[in-house]
Amino acid sequence: MSKLALLGGEQTIVEETSKPRNWRVSESFEEAFAKYVGVKYALPVSSGQTALNSALAGAGVGPGDEVIVVSFTWVASVSCVLHMNAIPIFADIDPRTFTMDPEDVRRKITPRTKAILPVDIYGHPADIIELKKIADENGLILVEDSAQATGARIDDKVVGGIAHITAFSFAGKPLASSSGGIMTTDDRGLYERAALAGQHPSLLSGVITDPELRKYVSTGGYGDNHRPDGRAMASAHEGLKTMDERTDARIENATFLTAELSKIEGITPPYVKPGVRHVYHMYTCLYDADHFSVSRDRFVDALNAEGLRTWTYIDGPNYVHETDGTPMHVGPLHHRPVYQELDLYGKGCPFKCPHGITPKYEIGSLPVTERITKQEFNFLQGDLSQPHGIDMMKKYVEAVQKVVDNIDELKE
Amino acid sequence: MSKLALLGGEQTIVEETSKPRNWRVSESFEEAFAKYVGVKYALPVSSGQTALNSALAGAGVGPGDEVIVVSFTWVASVSCVLHMNAIPIFADIDPRTFTMDPEDVRRKITPRTKAILPVDIYGHPADIIELKKIADENGLILVEDSAQATGARIDDKVVGGIAHITAFSFAGKPLASSSGGIMTTDDRGLYERAALAGQHPSLLSGVITDPELRKYVSTGGYGDNHRPDGRAMASAHEGLKTMDERTDARIENATFLTAELSKIEGITPPYVKPGVRHVYHMYTCLYDADHFSVSRDRFVDALNAEGLRTWTYIDGPNYVHETDGTPMHVGPLHHRPVYQELDLYGKGCPFKCPHGITPKYEIGSLPVTERITKQEFNFLQGDLSQPHGIDMMKKYVEAVQKVVDNIDELKE
Repeated sequence: MSKLALLGGEQTIVEETSKPRNWRVSESFEEAFAKYVGVKYALPVSSGQTALNSALAGAGVGPGDEVIVVSFTWVASVSCVLHMNAIPIFADIDPRTFTMDPEDVRRKITPRTKAILPVDIYGHPADIIELKKIADENGLILVEDSAQATGARIDDKVVGGIAHITAFSFAGKPLASSSGGIMTTDDRGLYERAALAGQHPSLLSGVITDPELRKYVSTGGYGDNHRPDGRAMASAHEGLKTMDERTDARIENATFLTAELSKIEGITPPYVKPGVRHVYHMYTCLYDADHFSVSRDRFVDALNAEGLRTWTYIDGPNYVHETDGTPMHVGPLHHRPVYQELDLYGKGCPFKCPHGITPKYEIGSLPVTERITKQEFNFLQGDLSQPHGIDMMKKYVEAVQKVVDNIDELKE
Repeated sequence: MSKLALLGGEQTIVEETSKPRNWRVSESFEEAFAKYVGVKYALPVSSGQTALNSALAGAGVGPGDEVIVVSFTWVASVSCVLHMNAIPIFADIDPRTFTMDPEDVRRKITPRTKAILPVDIYGHPADIIELKKIADENGLILVEDSAQATGARIDDKVVGGIAHITAFSFAGKPLASSSGGIMTTDDRGLYERAALAGQHPSLLSGVITDPELRKYVSTGGYGDNHRPDGRAMASAHEGLKTMDERTDARIENATFLTAELSKIEGITPPYVKPGVRHVYHMYTCLYDADHFSVSRDRFVDALNAEGLRTWTYIDGPNYVHETDGTPMHVGPLHHRPVYQELDLYGKGCPFKCPHGITPKYEIGSLPVTERITKQEFNFLQGDLSQPHGIDMMKKYVEAVQKVVDNIDELKE
């Protein structure tokens, strides 16, 4: 009878059996990304949405709290607020950058405001410097939705290292992978709370140091699953090494386009604020329907027919690749039924939460947002990126010029 | 001046530019999986958790609704209820299969009950036939958490085609992939509501036919992101082709282990209900501490030291691969702080939701669950799977026998 291995004897089984799984799949990517944006902490997650969900958990946003958001954005930038049972309050946007208007933010702050959530829409960073000042003055957390703007900069500061928390997305974005996202912050407390939103208990056990938060480790915090796909993170990690170079090539194409398109009356190419590095997830122009006496949507149809893929991002139907023909509700988010009817989970939840004040999202209450929605049209990141170069950009200009030259034929 | 392409002229750009993305990444896998379990609809998602979140959305569970669950399970089986702002009500388990006790379910039904959510824990299906009867008698939706039991059967019916809705997981499960999960149902209405929980508007646009639900298409329904990683789905699709064969090999190993371990007094190998195909995500035995006069946890330590990886699933610390040494709260879910303190999102939300009745989760209220938690120990799927065969199983038996033969040395 041999001695037990636990007491110093020989092991019965020397062959390999299963090892504890390391749920922290991408520690080296965490480090690389945190270093890239210049912060201490990065939390890889399953999507841009779950990066935002984590960010709001990090900010301590809860039932009835108000979060100032924009309506000129993708659904995730606001549904993340609803998922915390908090109340989104919409601020209007700047008419040139299409990002959150700091002055309107000041007007929308109430004693219930907990966070401000601007969006770096299309790859142009919001006015994070000014918004951070407002947040700090009012004891609020600034959560930046940089899903479309990985690699963007303001005066050589990389987005992800400026706001209190920043959320990034990878699916089809400037740092592209098959899925996933990442959240960054320089604040340990925000990082730990954010991890509670959707990480595995075994990961949390090694991350959560705050004694107040340790008690939530065993339920995986809020018990959602924000864990990323390991292979998707490996691809993103690889892509990060060449992202800046590829972005520079896209910026070069965009700069050429802007120089040429600015010569066409009635078309306004994208504005870039001085000191900003716009990464052009989309290349967004404004169309003056009054000048042309042809609707923006018909103009867009004509560009698509010329082989230049063009869509209207906020007026969603161009996304729809399968349809039964029923029109989809589009326009800025506050126009859509969930917000107009104040009901997500049923029974008015979370809009009519007794912990908060029931909001009202009036049509016409965000005049710049509502105007730009009707004027914008977009070319896509992929079409401005390698292998496409200046020769291809010349064809895009040619296509726009052709439609403009023949605009009278589009009148109905 | 050439004619516009929209009006029949030549296209300016003949080179390929970007195409609309098809968010329905894995239609062929959807079809293959639906066919495998014998239903009309399968919804690929990012994890077992999001499969459950989708399932509860499908069941129409909302604020204040009660869902009958078990406490002897992974956190996701219950946190999915909290994410709908609904109230989990715990039923006890069967002492042999460790799955939901139908008799206790009958006692827990109230006018607020909306769904019953049993778990096929460790790969042994719950008593879905009886639970379906109870659900149908009471107008409730039966949501089966089959995260650990892909390929399990009851009387030749494959799980996934029996309950109203079934949720599966892939990360390290019987059908393994790098991430992801899938939800199945034979009911069009349940499928459409489930898709609203976390799918892209462009996918929803092609899926949602119910006029009542179409209005939520433009916000991506509830606006969460449950979309799977495409490569993870491709791997799962490939794995499905050989899953049954690999599971049969594991069942053969488990059958051998059970024949041998049942000879050891004080150890009870896993029970398999007649007619059931147990897929052994874990191989779970009960340990009789009174018989051995040595604690279960010390016995488990001794098995691990022999090289046989062994853990106690519900008493969680064996998961923890990184730790700061602070003890983690473990045991059945209803013992853990979120449930004892009735607070998830802050302000008592959702437990104290005014739309429901505040529950109380008493220690000792689920006697079978609480007893089994202290008696069980588990070997892992990977250690019973190929390439391990009967020779390796003999070593596992040898390791158990050695520890039992030397049990007196473990007394402290």
